Amino acid sequence: MAQLQRIAIAPSQIQENLITLTKEQQHYLVRVLRLRTGDRFIAMDGKGKWWLTQLESEQAQVLETLTVETELSVAITLMVALPKGNGFDDIIRYSTELGVTCIAPVLSDRTLLNPSPQKLERWRRIATEAAEQSERAFVPTILEPVSFMTAINASQATHRYICEGRGDYPHLNSLVKTDIPEIIIATGPEGGWTEPEIENAIASGFQPVSLGRRILRAVTAPVVALTLISANYEV
Amino acid sequence: MAQLQRIAIAPSQIQENLITLTKEQQHYLVRVLRLRTGDRFIAMDGKGKWWLTQLESEQAQVLETLTVETELSVAITLMVALPKGNGFDDIIRYSTELGVTCIAPVLSDRTLLNPSPQKLERWRRIATEAAEQSERAFVPTILEPVSFMTAINASQATHRYICEGRGDYPHLNSLVKTDIPEIIIATGPEGGWTEPEIENAIASGFQPVSLGRRILRAVTAPVVALTLISANYEV
Repeated sequence: MAQLQRIAIAPSQIQENLITLTKEQQHYLVRVLRLRTGDRFIAMDGKGKWWLTQLESEQAQVLETLTVETELSVAITLMVALPKGNGFDDIIRYSTELGVTCIAPVLSDRTLLNPSPQKLERWRRIATEAAEQSERAFVPTILEPVSFMTAINASQATHRYICEGRGDYPHLNSLVKTDIPEIIIATGPEGGWTEPEIENAIASGFQPVSLGRRILRAVTAPVVALTLISANYEV
Repeated sequence: MAQLQRIAIAPSQIQENLITLTKEQQHYLVRVLRLRTGDRFIAMDGKGKWWLTQLESEQAQVLETLTVETELSVAITLMVALPKGNGFDDIIRYSTELGVTCIAPVLSDRTLLNPSPQKLERWRRIATEAAEQSERAFVPTILEPVSFMTAINASQATHRYICEGRGDYPHLNSLVKTDIPEIIIATGPEGGWTEPEIENAIASGFQPVSLGRRILRAVTAPVVALTLISANYEV
């Protein structure tokens, strides 16, 4: 299964074992992925349902409903301040292994660099490799970097947390509920978030949380946050 | 405080603000650490109590009881199969940040290399740096590498776990109790433990556990295991 290409479809596209493909999906399958009629790929609705399907020009035939045991029942978006050096590569590897759905790199007050478009391609390749190695059925989405303010204003989930090493905030582990379908969690850069960033996040509906009593590096905080969320959903 | 040397003492050694030092401790302080009468160091009982003390030949005077907020109330030994490349450096960094007490590198059936004594020095330097960065009061001990069989036969704690990616084992998060003073947790190499290794560990009293449904890299498993234990003790 790991070798097959995957595309996301809307639940409304599937009817009686036939998937009606949009023009964009046809283009992506035939021109980008170079599939031909009769080739197999995986369609997924992003909500935990996966189908093995066969391409038939403008449609795809569902051959089999797949059992996916390695994906979480919660969609986790990791909003992460870009760290210096190659730290973000490690964050992608670890986060993918731990079941993240979407990684949203953000430029914070203490972020130094604005990455090139080539970086984004590289990050997506790393996510694909990590998803295969960890036997996930899903490759996390990696968004283009935006400013932290843009990201928090665009975020919609009912449960949003911002991790902060200093200050007397409740531990994330005491707050995670397991009946929530979507969680956004934000982790900061080296040196932490600035005070205005924390204030803006709180004003936008983010709950500040602690990840424990020790000061974590920018690359460690996402691993800890995702470990705690996924363990709560899997136990 | 981070620069002061630390030694562990038995609670029975301290009486009325005087610590009676054993011959071994005197040798270690004077010959190995090169302290002289009047020099300060930290004595700790391994149960969360810390004292700033001053050397006075065969005794030490307690100057101050220290408040330590960044240490866990459990002593965690991470028994970890040496991974290839520089993966062990990362394991030391992450584990130290997450509060580990002792790291015991082991040579498993799938471990390729036998590290040089220079490596051990390097590892201890990395642990010291990570302890300072994460604002810990304690630098984890890094033991010399031994074979996995030697390590499991020497291990004594009542609560010992071995992490295994394949197989239907209970999740570590469902087993961690927070009234245990000492835990040993073992994580495997790339490709996992061999079946004889798992069988031998179980025969020696280790409980096999899962860290979730996805396959984790050798560098990720220790981070996940320590995150779950420390979060349970801190929340």
